[in-house]
Amino acid sequence: MPRSKEKPPPGEFELIARLCAGLKPGRRTILGPGDDCAVLAPVKRPLLVTIDSMVEGVHFRRPWFRPEALGRKALTVNLSDIAACGGWPLASVVNLAIPATLEPRFIERLYAGLRRAAVAAELDVVGGNITRASALAITVALIGEARRSILRRDTARPGDQIFVTGTVGDAAAGLKILEGRRRARGAARRFLIERFLNPTSRLRAGQRLAAMRPAPAAIDLSDGLWQDLGHLLDASHAGAEIDADAIPLSAAYRAAIGDDPELALGGGEDYELLFCARGRWSPAELSQRLGVAVHRIGRVMRASDGIRLTGGTRRGRAPRTAGWDQLRSRDSK
Amino acid sequence: MPRSKEKPPPGEFELIARLCAGLKPGRRTILGPGDDCAVLAPVKRPLLVTIDSMVEGVHFRRPWFRPEALGRKALTVNLSDIAACGGWPLASVVNLAIPATLEPRFIERLYAGLRRAAVAAELDVVGGNITRASALAITVALIGEARRSILRRDTARPGDQIFVTGTVGDAAAGLKILEGRRRARGAARRFLIERFLNPTSRLRAGQRLAAMRPAPAAIDLSDGLWQDLGHLLDASHAGAEIDADAIPLSAAYRAAIGDDPELALGGGEDYELLFCARGRWSPAELSQRLGVAVHRIGRVMRASDGIRLTGGTRRGRAPRTAGWDQLRSRDSK
Repeated sequence: MPRSKEKPPPGEFELIARLCAGLKPGRRTILGPGDDCAVLAPVKRPLLVTIDSMVEGVHFRRPWFRPEALGRKALTVNLSDIAACGGWPLASVVNLAIPATLEPRFIERLYAGLRRAAVAAELDVVGGNITRASALAITVALIGEARRSILRRDTARPGDQIFVTGTVGDAAAGLKILEGRRRARGAARRFLIERFLNPTSRLRAGQRLAAMRPAPAAIDLSDGLWQDLGHLLDASHAGAEIDADAIPLSAAYRAAIGDDPELALGGGEDYELLFCARGRWSPAELSQRLGVAVHRIGRVMRASDGIRLTGGTRRGRAPRTAGWDQLRSRDSK
Repeated sequence: MPRSKEKPPPGEFELIARLCAGLKPGRRTILGPGDDCAVLAPVKRPLLVTIDSMVEGVHFRRPWFRPEALGRKALTVNLSDIAACGGWPLASVVNLAIPATLEPRFIERLYAGLRRAAVAAELDVVGGNITRASALAITVALIGEARRSILRRDTARPGDQIFVTGTVGDAAAGLKILEGRRRARGAARRFLIERFLNPTSRLRAGQRLAAMRPAPAAIDLSDGLWQDLGHLLDASHAGAEIDADAIPLSAAYRAAIGDDPELALGGGEDYELLFCARGRWSPAELSQRLGVAVHRIGRVMRASDGIRLTGGTRRGRAPRTAGWDQLRSRDSK
């Protein structure tokens, strides 16, 4: 796997070997890092595959993160895609692009965080590649398996109830605080920043959703609730009615941002799940079943109904968010 | 899969959908691009997994490449890892990091080249992610399967004969010409540059090696013959004797560089296969069997013999190449 013209200081090959040395070869790994390919045991169920990247200056600034947290988050954003499909993670390969100025110790700590997150998610890091670049970038490709149904974006139907796990907008609020564009204090500040730096993927919740009949349509909240909802509705050729007052906001969000859900609708990186369940599920039942707080935020409508926001002070107005332009063009159809 | 705070001009989601629209969903693909994960049919044989990246300013300069050729090469360098394990490619996911200044048309052409190379290799491009970055980078993760033995690096034994496919040093010579550090004319110039810009992965040859008993130890020549040989011998805890006069040099290499194999020993990116076969194989038999010219360049020795270069004007001297430092430290053990 290793290939680069300019090598990082300790030699790419040696560094990868050292970074991976802490990994116990997993049950599924026939051949781990150090050969041209990693080799995994056959997978008898459908395979889930995803790739995602975190780029310095785009997704993060280096001083914000302990290296371990950066490695953990790079894996988590991929685990979240597996969660959104209701799958189980199996193995990952990691591509690190590192600037010449980066301390080898930084990379080792980053990898340590990634490894720990992999162990927690019961997944093997089976290989990697390291290359020079002007900015630090961590690209993770993840392979999972579907043991039950596969949660898809294109199966929402009018009448489905729309739910989200956890609270939304916290990561966006944390990012604003880190950027110095919003002030907050004490526990609220720490909570919101932590939600941005150290998100949780909803793997267990996704797996339990995949056991429901029919399997809900689902998506993870990476781009922001309003925009990700749009992706799901686009795929399902459906519309929706969302109750602004029902968007679950944390106490920390309310303390730092107030009761306006606009940032919660537009801000990304919460890595909660949004799903559309058929039948008479109550949020309490679903919270119990999924092992995480679940809130009902609206229902799926026909495509011709567009996507409407009700409640709050903004009745009928689409939020001015990153997702808004895209959704406005839907509304105007 | 899509996730980014700053989106490329046409909207990441729409762009990926458009880029992937030309893909016919393959036999193996249950769910292609556009959901959180791609879904592949179960794979009953051992899975091969690899990841590799091409970064602007490190692995290439943009003016050298037609966008289609860049897409093709980004896939080829990964296919070469599958070839080195003797596997069959199944599916890939692609992460594109693109600078704001890059024309969307460039990306579409890059993807078109990548798709064509994927079709030629009978593999599905099942998903992707696009992110902003200061430099263009194409990271491909590839999943393959082992239908026969798996070619490994760690199975060479003293007495094995060492072979390489094709000719070596051409890509390094082509790179020197592109960089203006070496002159060449006419057909030789075109051939060498083409070998750098548009390499071929030796998939078929690898698959046929995987059918031999015992399966040879193998590695693809990405970092350079001397260095990659070192990787293989390290993994096998073995030494080697290499005949400098036996290194296969193309007529174009001889025209541009001369008869000195130093660049061929040190230069990377040939994507030929180096393998160590047990028994009395002749190059002619192997060429016939693998469908590509095969040359014998030496034999595997015990680790205590180190790695020696014989023949030529450099008898006993290790080449002054990228791999040299690493190998010298072996010799001095």
